[in-house]
Amino acid sequence: MTPDEFRAAGHELIDWIADRRTEVATRRVLPDVQPGDVAARFPNTPPTETASAAEVLGELEELIATGITEVQHPMHFGWFPSNASLSSILGDIASSGLGSLGISWESSPALTEVEEVVVDWMRQLCGLSDNWHGVIQDTASTACLVAMLAARERATDHAQTRGGLRNLPSALCVYTTAEAHSSVRKGALLAGFGADDIRVIDVDPWTRDMLPAHLAEVMQADVTAGHQPAIVVASAGSTGVTAFDPISEIAAIASIHDAWIHVDAAMAGSAMVLPEMRSRFEGIEEADSISWNPHKWFGTILDCSLMYLRDPQHLIRVMSTNPSYLQSTAAGDATQYRDWGVPLGRRFRALKLWYQLRIDGIASIQDRLRRDLENAQWIADEFAALDDWELVAPVRLQTVCIRHNPNDSLSGADLDAHTLRWVRELNSSGRAFLSPSQLDDQWMVRISVGAESTERSHLERLVVLIRGVAEA
Amino acid sequence: MTPDEFRAAGHELIDWIADRRTEVATRRVLPDVQPGDVAARFPNTPPTETASAAEVLGELEELIATGITEVQHPMHFGWFPSNASLSSILGDIASSGLGSLGISWESSPALTEVEEVVVDWMRQLCGLSDNWHGVIQDTASTACLVAMLAARERATDHAQTRGGLRNLPSALCVYTTAEAHSSVRKGALLAGFGADDIRVIDVDPWTRDMLPAHLAEVMQADVTAGHQPAIVVASAGSTGVTAFDPISEIAAIASIHDAWIHVDAAMAGSAMVLPEMRSRFEGIEEADSISWNPHKWFGTILDCSLMYLRDPQHLIRVMSTNPSYLQSTAAGDATQYRDWGVPLGRRFRALKLWYQLRIDGIASIQDRLRRDLENAQWIADEFAALDDWELVAPVRLQTVCIRHNPNDSLSGADLDAHTLRWVRELNSSGRAFLSPSQLDDQWMVRISVGAESTERSHLERLVVLIRGVAEA
Repeated sequence: MTPDEFRAAGHELIDWIADRRTEVATRRVLPDVQPGDVAARFPNTPPTETASAAEVLGELEELIATGITEVQHPMHFGWFPSNASLSSILGDIASSGLGSLGISWESSPALTEVEEVVVDWMRQLCGLSDNWHGVIQDTASTACLVAMLAARERATDHAQTRGGLRNLPSALCVYTTAEAHSSVRKGALLAGFGADDIRVIDVDPWTRDMLPAHLAEVMQADVTAGHQPAIVVASAGSTGVTAFDPISEIAAIASIHDAWIHVDAAMAGSAMVLPEMRSRFEGIEEADSISWNPHKWFGTILDCSLMYLRDPQHLIRVMSTNPSYLQSTAAGDATQYRDWGVPLGRRFRALKLWYQLRIDGIASIQDRLRRDLENAQWIADEFAALDDWELVAPVRLQTVCIRHNPNDSLSGADLDAHTLRWVRELNSSGRAFLSPSQLDDQWMVRISVGAESTERSHLERLVVLIRGVAEA
Repeated sequence: MTPDEFRAAGHELIDWIADRRTEVATRRVLPDVQPGDVAARFPNTPPTETASAAEVLGELEELIATGITEVQHPMHFGWFPSNASLSSILGDIASSGLGSLGISWESSPALTEVEEVVVDWMRQLCGLSDNWHGVIQDTASTACLVAMLAARERATDHAQTRGGLRNLPSALCVYTTAEAHSSVRKGALLAGFGADDIRVIDVDPWTRDMLPAHLAEVMQADVTAGHQPAIVVASAGSTGVTAFDPISEIAAIASIHDAWIHVDAAMAGSAMVLPEMRSRFEGIEEADSISWNPHKWFGTILDCSLMYLRDPQHLIRVMSTNPSYLQSTAAGDATQYRDWGVPLGRRFRALKLWYQLRIDGIASIQDRLRRDLENAQWIADEFAALDDWELVAPVRLQTVCIRHNPNDSLSGADLDAHTLRWVRELNSSGRAFLSPSQLDDQWMVRISVGAESTERSHLERLVVLIRGVAEA
């Protein structure tokens, strides 16, 4: 494809993207497809003929775009906000267009240094001290694995340089709660911790925040039994109900045993850019690592997960490689981000954050987040005031967890069947999308407010739609 | 940013990308910057004012694009080809524009199913049997880590479900060569294998291919000592000199001890789309996992690493999570790619491969790869015929490893100083870029042929430039 062919096709594609965004609200949120439907639209052998860019765009529209869930839709309230602001999409396009290669400082000095600049800007916008040093990972799952690996090596005085995890004198223990994201358990197991050594700490039955007294008790029991506390993962805004584990109290306990403290603020970290919300994160300065995803509520297109570390030199020692073919005299003390994570090759991800901050500006992002906090409170109040509806968890940020129980007549499996019936009916209508989730083994429904395009009017419509399917 | 603002800015950005590509050969390959230079162009506090998209594009041009290494330049011969074909950039832009979210089948059915379709097309184009099941990882480094984790859990009958790696009855051993990519050692250490248990198998002194007799000997010695062979990583085209470990013979040995076999074909895997080159990969069907990067020579923009597994169900058991908030009745048996790797959230990476295959077509890609093989042979013959020049390794594909030694007068540190002097002089001129690399602790220079824009005339110019700096 020549640059001029690219130019013509690129203009058409940009128009298509702009049109799709303009009309996003006119489409279904959840696509009307079953497993296998999309794959069946394609030949099962590779194409032998080429096609024009216009034909390919036609297939993109007909065969592919009709098979995605429209998370940019104003009636998308599922999982968590997964915003892709148009400004950040421009930055992502710039990254693709540069065709740059991040394997070392020398392979793309700007890729490394703009990342350093932008993650430091974001640190300041979050009110974090300059004790923190940042990097962009793909996702918070990866950041969690990286934290687990760093903790493992700190707890074992770099066992990887000897026999690895075999023949350790004691079990290495991981502490978290049942509300923590699934990536915490996954990261622990992948890092070589055993399922037997993951401790699930009790939570407050209403807020679902970790109970520090129970953490202290379990940790002390482990030490007494000859085990070694390696890492505590505190959720700052859990996925299910936005629980905020008390980081200050956790840190005070963990520090007695020199356990690593990782704060997983994947969704809720966006709220740190609002000074009035920072009290939710009290104690975060005491952690060893933090991660949060601008690619969620904040609005930077996936993938863009910020990870901050207090001691990057420790991580570099765990991750570092320096083969001759990647050495360069010019680089000197330059940051080599390959030593801050798993992949060697990295995209120029900082550009999407940079574009967003430069074009949209932090003030407009803050305004939008505040709008969402108010909207979440508004819809929570609506349901709280209705007969037969219950808020099953407090509204800490922008997630509202509800359950409908007509005349309080249902329980157990009957209540679950009712809940799943109405939420699936709503989701399959294509008019709105909500994620059900379990709490104490009972299904409830999460309204995760925060799509960039969601205004109060959409929330008003959501109340009508939900009541229509649930109360029918 | 509104869709219409995006439309206008997007058109400007597309033109800028097309113009940059048109003029790529007029720029320096290596930018004229020192560590810190790019960062110093930016304020160290976050922007408080917004800017127009045109202003931001101006800054992208002035402050950022002047600080990248132009790996799309026809005179880029460093590391490995890092092609970003314009067709694949279009696909990447489509992915960004869709703003889709890959956390489950339901979150974007097309993201999952188009990936299944396209990785299967690529499997067929590589001549791999339908025993293989594919997924796109970000990089081969990550694929290597995933293979290490899968091997670890197979060797321990899923120790992660119990106590993890502690109290294993025997050491778990990893086998590879000194020519293997740095990510092999890194992946082993991150997966919890110890440095003490990584075995570096001897290689042929000329080809640098693993010597299977030595592998058999070391593996047997480990078993005799009560250790357990866990994984062999065979390099199919190593980074330094494109060594091809003999996979058939390795597999015969590894299978005796039920060790996992991972084939790292990160760079050279592109050659599998050339039927005449497949003999280089003989035995690959016997492996347990394979990875190679379309984002290198093949020309798909970073990041796009294909990983194929013979038994994905094993990997899924190692990686799987299924929290309530990600469950969906509709999904049924649908593939959940989150269980094939580390991150939960995934981009729509299949689109860039799909665009490339549809627009450029496999035939034109094959033609380009054959051109590069011929060009590499041509420049190798040129240097072989010159006095004072030596090919220090055989030319297996598109990498030519050379050294200059005037009148055979230099050795040891003096020879290294001469080699590094001339290659750095050439690189810092900005006219071409080559990566030096070490072989038997002596520096040599790699000419990695294969940038999409590199024609014979560029190779001819490279010979003149190299001789100019080295023979001066």
